[in-house]
Amino acid sequence: MIQLSLIGIGTGNPDHVTLAGVKALQAADLILLPRKGEGKSDLVDLRRLLCRELLGREASGRESLNDMQRPRVVEFDLPERDNNTDYLAAVDDWHAAIADVWGELMGTWLPRGGRVAMLIWGDPSLYDSSLRIAGRLGEGGRQRQVEVKVVPGITSLQVLTAEHRIPLNALAEPVQITTGRRLRERGWPTDAASVAVMLDRGGAFETLPSEGIHIWWGAYLGMDKQCLIQGPLSEVGAAILQQRAALREQHGWIMDTYLLARRSY
Amino acid sequence: MIQLSLIGIGTGNPDHVTLAGVKALQAADLILLPRKGEGKSDLVDLRRLLCRELLGREASGRESLNDMQRPRVVEFDLPERDNNTDYLAAVDDWHAAIADVWGELMGTWLPRGGRVAMLIWGDPSLYDSSLRIAGRLGEGGRQRQVEVKVVPGITSLQVLTAEHRIPLNALAEPVQITTGRRLRERGWPTDAASVAVMLDRGGAFETLPSEGIHIWWGAYLGMDKQCLIQGPLSEVGAAILQQRAALREQHGWIMDTYLLARRSY
Repeated sequence: MIQLSLIGIGTGNPDHVTLAGVKALQAADLILLPRKGEGKSDLVDLRRLLCRELLGREASGRESLNDMQRPRVVEFDLPERDNNTDYLAAVDDWHAAIADVWGELMGTWLPRGGRVAMLIWGDPSLYDSSLRIAGRLGEGGRQRQVEVKVVPGITSLQVLTAEHRIPLNALAEPVQITTGRRLRERGWPTDAASVAVMLDRGGAFETLPSEGIHIWWGAYLGMDKQCLIQGPLSEVGAAILQQRAALREQHGWIMDTYLLARRSY
Repeated sequence: MIQLSLIGIGTGNPDHVTLAGVKALQAADLILLPRKGEGKSDLVDLRRLLCRELLGREASGRESLNDMQRPRVVEFDLPERDNNTDYLAAVDDWHAAIADVWGELMGTWLPRGGRVAMLIWGDPSLYDSSLRIAGRLGEGGRQRQVEVKVVPGITSLQVLTAEHRIPLNALAEPVQITTGRRLRERGWPTDAASVAVMLDRGGAFETLPSEGIHIWWGAYLGMDKQCLIQGPLSEVGAAILQQRAALREQHGWIMDTYLLARRSY
């Protein structure tokens, strides 16, 4: 029997991890760290750093772990997603391929079962596929009995609003969380005064009529290279895209998110 | 000069607090704990317990605080909100009254300035007014220079999805976060496959046609008395309302939240 803990680790600052996250990490027998191709090697490095930092930390009054107690950390190459076919079909195949890799690693390193931990950026509940992939471990040829536990973590949206010192929602109003893709395809959602946008490859807000919209944007949230811009979309939209391109060029990758509202608050 | 840290503390389980939250709490000169009337005295007790537990904890390799270093913890009575007038106007007056109380307490206990911490349920960004109240400390007769810092915390929605082991959003789909009041008034939001409902006084979902909707419900999330129910709304809706009434009777108060989706996932 495998116990799999999906641990939300926030956005790269070890201090964003919860005490429950530290405990779950320290209690693991095996920690699986995915490698995602060269462009984002910063992120693998950050996960490695987080592991080292959090495994050495005293979370619960308990002594630091000695080498015998330390979980084994195993890195693996994440399969690549086929971007040339239908989006949802490609994602489905990709999840199946990742579940195969997870299953193999668990079989190799924990043949008699045990506790596996995975570090998930942000929170496993928000635009993350690890829960869906874990659900496939029992399917098909994999037939692996897995008990899943989720440890919530701070999302990039929470760091965005904390750093801008703003609420996510206007007073008593709803907020929609959506993707850049969706914003491009459907425009401003009906029935929402505020819209938080994730997974935007850049500039989905350009498809909106910018008058009367305020934007709070942030990149590399929680990291040393964090960058924030906010203002009326009509005034700062172009500057955000310029800055985004420059930062991406400089660091080789970028992760950013933003909140849009029909009024400043 | 006052530095005010609004620290998200999750939903009552000390392990939900982040390492940054523990550090901010330990670094404070003054911690303000609101008392909210008799019905929810459990919650004041929980905040007291959290303070005691987290102030005694070693967060950063540093020794436990001794009595001289410990922040002063001051409890105060939260002004009551007038429920007989227009909702938004009543909230506005209420926020002004709370800002007055905060200002007085800061003047009394930190006449030469210092670091104040407040423990915020969940995350200060989501359906919480502390940021708006803090923004009023510089207004009118208060004239208080305050530098605000936000430390994100785990929201009840994150604990809800973690405990049910589900994502908040369906794959690549948006999610709307809204209130019970709004759901009653406007029905299912257009353009959202999933709807997370907070601040419901009970049963706003009854106003929806229940066919084809799945619900994941949770009360006292993260606490020992946590209660979870999930299933097709048409099958479990009534049971949730019954359970909710019974729990409220038993404990004297209830806090709950739920996610609705147009399909199971």
